Amino acid sequence: MADPTRIWTAALIVIGDEILSGRTQDRNIAQVASWLNVQGIRLKEVRVIADDADAIGEAVNLLRARNDYLFTTGGIGPTHDDITVDAIAAALGVGVEIHPEARAALERHYATRGGLTDARLRMARVPAGSSLIENRMSGAPGIRHGNIFIMAGVPHITAGMLESLTGTLEGGDPLISAQIGCWVPESEIADLLHDVERSHDGCQIGSYPFFREGRVGANFVVRSTARDGLDRCVDDLVARLEAAGWPVEPGGI
Amino acid sequence: MADPTRIWTAALIVIGDEILSGRTQDRNIAQVASWLNVQGIRLKEVRVIADDADAIGEAVNLLRARNDYLFTTGGIGPTHDDITVDAIAAALGVGVEIHPEARAALERHYATRGGLTDARLRMARVPAGSSLIENRMSGAPGIRHGNIFIMAGVPHITAGMLESLTGTLEGGDPLISAQIGCWVPESEIADLLHDVERSHDGCQIGSYPFFREGRVGANFVVRSTARDGLDRCVDDLVARLEAAGWPVEPGGI
Repeated sequence: MADPTRIWTAALIVIGDEILSGRTQDRNIAQVASWLNVQGIRLKEVRVIADDADAIGEAVNLLRARNDYLFTTGGIGPTHDDITVDAIAAALGVGVEIHPEARAALERHYATRGGLTDARLRMARVPAGSSLIENRMSGAPGIRHGNIFIMAGVPHITAGMLESLTGTLEGGDPLISAQIGCWVPESEIADLLHDVERSHDGCQIGSYPFFREGRVGANFVVRSTARDGLDRCVDDLVARLEAAGWPVEPGGI
Repeated sequence: MADPTRIWTAALIVIGDEILSGRTQDRNIAQVASWLNVQGIRLKEVRVIADDADAIGEAVNLLRARNDYLFTTGGIGPTHDDITVDAIAAALGVGVEIHPEARAALERHYATRGGLTDARLRMARVPAGSSLIENRMSGAPGIRHGNIFIMAGVPHITAGMLESLTGTLEGGDPLISAQIGCWVPESEIADLLHDVERSHDGCQIGSYPFFREGRVGANFVVRSTARDGLDRCVDDLVARLEAAGWPVEPGGI
């Protein structure tokens, strides 16, 4: 029988010199994280690493063992700096092979775009034993090998790959959250927050301060896997904040 | 004598459930990365981890040993979910103490804002043996302990802390870069890129494809620590692309 309290976890490896150099603002962490929440899978850790085979291999072998699922983004295009497939195959101790369905998909995609050159055929290379993740945006598919999901770095292509994986991975109850906001310096209500969290098992409260319109405030996010417990915690938090003289804005500020 | 070829490295740990849940889009990776480049320090690896003392301790001890510098963002506010200082002190095997200058800064900041409560005084707590990083934006300073730099999670406060560190850390030659753009499918010129990179020692070429205005194109970023070598590599790349029939847009598209 399935254990209803089991927490399913994932890690994400963002591969790319362009993120580490500051050239590109990463957008995949947030989109993978949000998508995983809906699947009932908890994102435990993210690593951003260079286009470096040893660094990729080390991170892949550690994080695939530690988590139910491992996702990677980046480095699966046709150019010389796209080394993700080779690095992961080496880490797994398997060869690299041309996947026939990937080849067929690329042939169709490039039929009217100049044909399938050697460079383009690189995008059909997978660690031996892989299956494919559909990519409706461009010819090159994502790759699944065991619990590893190898995805594109370009965010809208990653989004399409996530969409095609939606509902296919076993997870637990999704983490749900509710947010309220308050024009209060968070340091004024630190003890109150802590007390409320301790009174509601299974709920975590995050405090996110801001400075806006010349005033300080904070949003409070309550997270839980149980709707009832979440609602009770939020009601309690609102009641205690208002009793302390801090009117609450539902939904956050 | 200093070794002019020495590469100075840093790692960054982004601490916060709000990033891993997808609630907040991280902005610190890109700003720390860009700032480090100017200091002549290479960002080697980023980890995003939860507000969890064991996870923080493990990452801190590994990455401070592997790199010249380690930066952290997040978890240094006044609330119960702000555990960075305690987790790092535990990882270092030192106690936590109130830093007298941090206390004085907080007293000044809160003199007209309701006074220094116990919760606010939490923001003066540092791992024993630390010095402070100035924070002109709000009362709570950042913390330096050995090669570890503990900074705020709120991006504009982080920015202020980085500014006060500018020019104070030893680094090497800054990594410089130049970008050009081309309306070309990157798969068409994969071999060309690879050949150019191999012809120019000390230069890396990154290829960043996009799909815009109904057409595919790519930007190419050449990175090097030497201005001369960088310029020669860019000139060569432009010449070979144009010879192959792909007009180049200087600066990128």
